[in-house]
Amino acid sequence: MKKTAMILAFLASGICWAQPPADCKPSELNIPGAPYPCVFPDHRAMFRVAAPDAQKVRVRVGTGFDMAKEADGLWYVTTTPLVEGFHYYMINIDGASVSDPATQTFFGSGEWSSAIEIPAADADFYSHKNVPHGIVRIQWYFSTVTQQWRRCLIYTPPDYEINPKARYPVLYLLHGWGENELGWTFQGHVDQIMDNLIAVGKAKPMLIVMDNLNAVKPGEDGTIYNARGALTQAVPQPQAPPGGAPGVPGAGPGAQRPAGGASPARPPFRLSTTFTEMMVTDLIPMVEKNYRVAPGRENRAMAGLSMGGMQTFTTGLQNLDKFAFLGGLSGNCGSFGGPFDPKTSCGGAFADPAAFNGKVKVLFLSTGSVEGPRVKQFSDELTQAGISNVYFESPGTAHEWLSWRRALADFAPRLFR
Amino acid sequence: MKKTAMILAFLASGICWAQPPADCKPSELNIPGAPYPCVFPDHRAMFRVAAPDAQKVRVRVGTGFDMAKEADGLWYVTTTPLVEGFHYYMINIDGASVSDPATQTFFGSGEWSSAIEIPAADADFYSHKNVPHGIVRIQWYFSTVTQQWRRCLIYTPPDYEINPKARYPVLYLLHGWGENELGWTFQGHVDQIMDNLIAVGKAKPMLIVMDNLNAVKPGEDGTIYNARGALTQAVPQPQAPPGGAPGVPGAGPGAQRPAGGASPARPPFRLSTTFTEMMVTDLIPMVEKNYRVAPGRENRAMAGLSMGGMQTFTTGLQNLDKFAFLGGLSGNCGSFGGPFDPKTSCGGAFADPAAFNGKVKVLFLSTGSVEGPRVKQFSDELTQAGISNVYFESPGTAHEWLSWRRALADFAPRLFR
Repeated sequence: MKKTAMILAFLASGICWAQPPADCKPSELNIPGAPYPCVFPDHRAMFRVAAPDAQKVRVRVGTGFDMAKEADGLWYVTTTPLVEGFHYYMINIDGASVSDPATQTFFGSGEWSSAIEIPAADADFYSHKNVPHGIVRIQWYFSTVTQQWRRCLIYTPPDYEINPKARYPVLYLLHGWGENELGWTFQGHVDQIMDNLIAVGKAKPMLIVMDNLNAVKPGEDGTIYNARGALTQAVPQPQAPPGGAPGVPGAGPGAQRPAGGASPARPPFRLSTTFTEMMVTDLIPMVEKNYRVAPGRENRAMAGLSMGGMQTFTTGLQNLDKFAFLGGLSGNCGSFGGPFDPKTSCGGAFADPAAFNGKVKVLFLSTGSVEGPRVKQFSDELTQAGISNVYFESPGTAHEWLSWRRALADFAPRLFR
Repeated sequence: MKKTAMILAFLASGICWAQPPADCKPSELNIPGAPYPCVFPDHRAMFRVAAPDAQKVRVRVGTGFDMAKEADGLWYVTTTPLVEGFHYYMINIDGASVSDPATQTFFGSGEWSSAIEIPAADADFYSHKNVPHGIVRIQWYFSTVTQQWRRCLIYTPPDYEINPKARYPVLYLLHGWGENELGWTFQGHVDQIMDNLIAVGKAKPMLIVMDNLNAVKPGEDGTIYNARGALTQAVPQPQAPPGGAPGVPGAGPGAQRPAGGASPARPPFRLSTTFTEMMVTDLIPMVEKNYRVAPGRENRAMAGLSMGGMQTFTTGLQNLDKFAFLGGLSGNCGSFGGPFDPKTSCGGAFADPAAFNGKVKVLFLSTGSVEGPRVKQFSDELTQAGISNVYFESPGTAHEWLSWRRALADFAPRLFR
């Protein structure tokens, strides 16, 4: 139905225009009571913005959609069908890119972005259910390496409180570029995913430590956000993350990337050594001092999404005495350093397959099917080189949170076995 | 210095315009690396917005300030000096009221708002220090009354983890109108305030439960947000909160209130009875089941700010068998129901002073000095009626978070003695 026809239909039916069409359901990420954005059964989304004196209003959710000012003086657009899952989006008002006041905001792309949730057919696995619930704790600690107070979020499983003497293994889990330590909880539903897995015995009870991958020493030039406010860029933005650009729905290798993003060859890529130092010096000791944690590498895993996956490989492959499980969710070491060479790629970590396989109990690689073939290709290259690895593909999803929720749900049950 | 003169000065000095003036320090609430908004030593704030094609851009922080497009194509304004503390603010771009992409967002006035922190001379009491740290936990639970999953945040003191058999008293602490359960942690610094008080022995270790004051039953019409997206308004917005309108810096009784806000007489005011029912039926039992809590009314306190203070009096005065300590921070029952009458006001709770004083160990009332005389007047009325109460005034602050941080720091040491 065209917009004009819809208006006429509403006027005729006496329904107030403030209400969206009956089959367009408010996104679950809207602020309380906000009817827009809403989602149609075919996954088109309808946005509304109040910008009375603006000349041009657009919404950017993956690609851009021009909005039109309707008879009620508000701006509307209905998109083409969107991919299932969680999408960041921004509104552009006369050239100003801003979040939509109608939604919760989430830290992505280096700023507090709006988001819309396109209901997934398999949403049950990350939904609230009547099962024992774990807790996400907001933990502050002082880093001697960065000389700053840092915040991390720590999931403790339901029985952590009940069994005051039990000790638990730990997964260190990182967010992606432009996100922060809140991402896995607020965007990722880490607590619901784990509660549901643990309740049916699919995953072992474990702690999940979610820190911020940004770590710089005093005077070190290293803000990795590409926010409009950011001044420093010592650590380069991941220019060609495996399978697409962060936060861009449907962006595969051939899809449009943000300005300055695409790079034809795999560029040399340097990730933060300060993060590794901070993690080993401050984070892990803080966790092991304050929480009932099982000791040793076989009780420690590290994983991350996108840039966090790259950081996981940077940190983890150099510290195999500390981690027996590694996961790269839409991000790993296969995307930088030129064509894969088992002897030299990823710092030569895969040069001795037997030794590697003996140490790393699970090497997990995942991607969304819409992200393109890069992760699968890396998994195949590793397999051909004799490196045991697990490949998981999220059907129909892009470089986005639904891919990572699903990947976590596949990865967690493999841990600490 | 006028803006034009400043530009010329910068051009002459060779300093890049992207950097704010040397004595204008980025607000601590900015996203990482963002230089604007910044704060001058005299508490003027300088804002910058990118809105290339806009015709008119304003910032509203208390009152509105028109921004001007400068030679670099960006919009700037320097405000008059602002009151110390935390202020919500919004940008208006050609009529669209939106948050500023340069800052963190906080849920206030029913939407995710920008905020700026004007450094307070006494900021030490809510700052991170090298003291034992408590934890804020994100606790989900199912409410049988509202038939929905609810989220509350729970502060546990540093020794909660260390003494696995100790039981602790509990303060139930509510946010204000248009805010939510995250407010006391992200805007209020509840954890730093309590850690610092407990570290020097000023406050007893306690749990602080921060829930959402919105609670409606299925089919009940009761969204209390006045957000642009909100559809229902069964519970009225506090039209004349004690001492000013929520989120409006410097708004005393005579100051400008949001459209539709001011009301000449104290209107009849109905707060949510569903919240009380939910709290008694679901929240308190959940807390007492899952946490090591000391039993009985003498180990239970309830307080809230602004509308949360009103809810505290609504809930608490009707449930004195459950609470021995009550606190109204810039909000209480004195602002509705007409002139104060000790026999009938506040549901007649103060009709028998001896009985009341015997039950309520601390009745705490606070306000910011800029909010006006209403809370002091109510405190005096209570005193004249024979009701023991504590009055605290935050010097130089408005109906805002610095008033409430200071009030908590004064109130918490009085609890559970």
